[in-house]
Amino acid sequence: MPKLNENYQNVKDSYLFAEIARRVKVYEETHPDKADQIIRLGIGDVTLPLTKSVIEALHEAVDSQAVSETFMGYGPEQGYEFARKAIADYYARNGIEVDPAAIFISDGAKSDTGNITELFSNDNVVLVPDPVYPVYVDTNTMDGKKIIYMNGTEENDFLPMPDDKVKADIIYLCSPNNPTGASYNKEQLKAWVDYALKNDSVILYDSAYEAFITDQDLPRSIYAIEGAKECAIEFCSLSKTAGFTGTRFSYTVVPTELVFTASNGATLSLHDMWNRRQSTKFNGTPYIIQYAAARVFTEEGMAECQQNIEYYRENARMIAETLKKKNIWFTGGVNSPYIWFKCPKEMESWEFFDYLLENAQIVGTPGAGFGENGKNYFRLTSFGKHEKTAEAMKRFDELF
Amino acid sequence: MPKLNENYQNVKDSYLFAEIARRVKVYEETHPDKADQIIRLGIGDVTLPLTKSVIEALHEAVDSQAVSETFMGYGPEQGYEFARKAIADYYARNGIEVDPAAIFISDGAKSDTGNITELFSNDNVVLVPDPVYPVYVDTNTMDGKKIIYMNGTEENDFLPMPDDKVKADIIYLCSPNNPTGASYNKEQLKAWVDYALKNDSVILYDSAYEAFITDQDLPRSIYAIEGAKECAIEFCSLSKTAGFTGTRFSYTVVPTELVFTASNGATLSLHDMWNRRQSTKFNGTPYIIQYAAARVFTEEGMAECQQNIEYYRENARMIAETLKKKNIWFTGGVNSPYIWFKCPKEMESWEFFDYLLENAQIVGTPGAGFGENGKNYFRLTSFGKHEKTAEAMKRFDELF
Repeated sequence: MPKLNENYQNVKDSYLFAEIARRVKVYEETHPDKADQIIRLGIGDVTLPLTKSVIEALHEAVDSQAVSETFMGYGPEQGYEFARKAIADYYARNGIEVDPAAIFISDGAKSDTGNITELFSNDNVVLVPDPVYPVYVDTNTMDGKKIIYMNGTEENDFLPMPDDKVKADIIYLCSPNNPTGASYNKEQLKAWVDYALKNDSVILYDSAYEAFITDQDLPRSIYAIEGAKECAIEFCSLSKTAGFTGTRFSYTVVPTELVFTASNGATLSLHDMWNRRQSTKFNGTPYIIQYAAARVFTEEGMAECQQNIEYYRENARMIAETLKKKNIWFTGGVNSPYIWFKCPKEMESWEFFDYLLENAQIVGTPGAGFGENGKNYFRLTSFGKHEKTAEAMKRFDELF
Repeated sequence: MPKLNENYQNVKDSYLFAEIARRVKVYEETHPDKADQIIRLGIGDVTLPLTKSVIEALHEAVDSQAVSETFMGYGPEQGYEFARKAIADYYARNGIEVDPAAIFISDGAKSDTGNITELFSNDNVVLVPDPVYPVYVDTNTMDGKKIIYMNGTEENDFLPMPDDKVKADIIYLCSPNNPTGASYNKEQLKAWVDYALKNDSVILYDSAYEAFITDQDLPRSIYAIEGAKECAIEFCSLSKTAGFTGTRFSYTVVPTELVFTASNGATLSLHDMWNRRQSTKFNGTPYIIQYAAARVFTEEGMAECQQNIEYYRENARMIAETLKKKNIWFTGGVNSPYIWFKCPKEMESWEFFDYLLENAQIVGTPGAGFGENGKNYFRLTSFGKHEKTAEAMKRFDELF
């Protein structure tokens, strides 16, 4: 009989957004008259369509697949040269040098942050923030790896810093953060890189929201910090940058500098191992998607994306202003599409979720879904339509 | 310091097709006058472009992504209902009942046959045929699982049958087979299902080439065999069926009947575990790809695909006729795009590779790349152009 991976029994049963969907459905069924008034500012999904350049590029790529002469079959598992080069050029425009050969194109940061755990044996200590994007915890739980937490709190603006007394082999950081919207500055990130270099740890850096950064002093990549190539893997995505949540394109940078010693004294390269992993268990991102994604990374393509992001930023501003007016503590919303705030009236987050749904027909995300430290906090996202977001904030204003 | 997954040290270094590419490159550099005469019948990549229906559907889906009202963001990780239903209908037309809820859409059979190993603990015995698609071996080696082999030989037509003395927890079968092109008939496949049910094993059934089957007596799915839903997971793909090698769409059937007992007595469902795995580490196949794939599974869409497959079958016939004429033993080529033959003149397969490249400028795949039992065999594929395949067979005919 096959022995199953029993670690799956330790993965928490209900995925956050499934529970939200369930509660909303119950509400809709019990309040049919209110169902059409529900405004969803919960899940972090974009609402603006793909940009003009991307649509044009997709059509071009589709046409090329209709003709023998330009038809593309199997591509390199790591992604096409043209796409890797386009990403390296984008990094360069932000002042960061990344070798195209260190870039691996994939279908999602979720896939890559999940699959990367395979490269590490199961006797590592993994440090994750609390609150945290649940995927980091769930994937390591599936492996049976030991997870320890660092506290994000109001006191540290939900930006936990390294503690020399804590020894971790693998560290997950996400900045701008999901769910809190908080962003590490260069000095803070340097402290993390210094800690990793000193302790010989690996940082898994989720940079999926880098395009939302406006503050010039905030790093948009961990490689803006000296020494990061010796200790960090970076995960990026076009999901939020270019509205690719349904189109699927991401990239992961695994520098060749990341080498460690095996128990037999051999030198193992994480870059080579990830290359082997992707070559063996992945067949590359669709050609037509890569072709269109390359267009995103051009100056013109990125300008269009920034127009869309500006639309979302305006929503974030509306939400932030309402919270300020109500004297509710919050973080995020400036360099991030997420706003994370303290639940009013000392409510716990699921209680507040129900309260907000019942009384204002607004759907948000309870902080408890992201960890213990989120249990009195709540996340709203700026990905809605202006009118809906404005209407939601009007109701919020009236409610409190 | 992070402890790396040291099993990676046991994965064979050079991937078969990389070594082929290297040797071809050397040949081109040393024989510049012959470089443009090279005919590639090695790697199993299609050459015909996407069909008319698929191209139309892709354009439609792209247009829908350009407008807010029809824009699709995050989809269900398991795939859209419409696509799962289209696949279930396709099964039904082939006389097989599959619940759409058991179907998981993904980006490639390679991804899924690789990732599925995560559901099993590492103390399983995995039975794979030799010769074999290298991914089955490499992925289990990465996990550190114990692999045992069953022999494919001329005597059993490269269709190894179960042996009651061998106890295996997990069994990989591929039919029509890559690399040999051999296909199990219903009786043979029933023997495998009986063995799995008796020994409480799981069969991982790779059915990526089912669309090439013309013989009505050959099963196109393991679920054509009674009892298979209690013991088998099936992996399918549009790569060869619809020329999606660069477009990426596959599906995996994990029946809810597949339940096993954990060490603590709990019942674990492979379906639920795979659902959790995919929800946690995957964000779904791109909407536009799923939309176009659904078109493939319609009667009209599949008729177009079968026209393309007929084109490849004609190539297989040319190759088979040449081998017959030369009295060279071979299998495959009828219900499969692959032809697997004994190397002439008692040559070993890499020796024959070089000989064929040197003397006829034909690139094929050495059997040794698929395992010990392949070392005197050679694979040609039918995915070339008619003219090229005909020219290659003319040269082959003259050479021997």
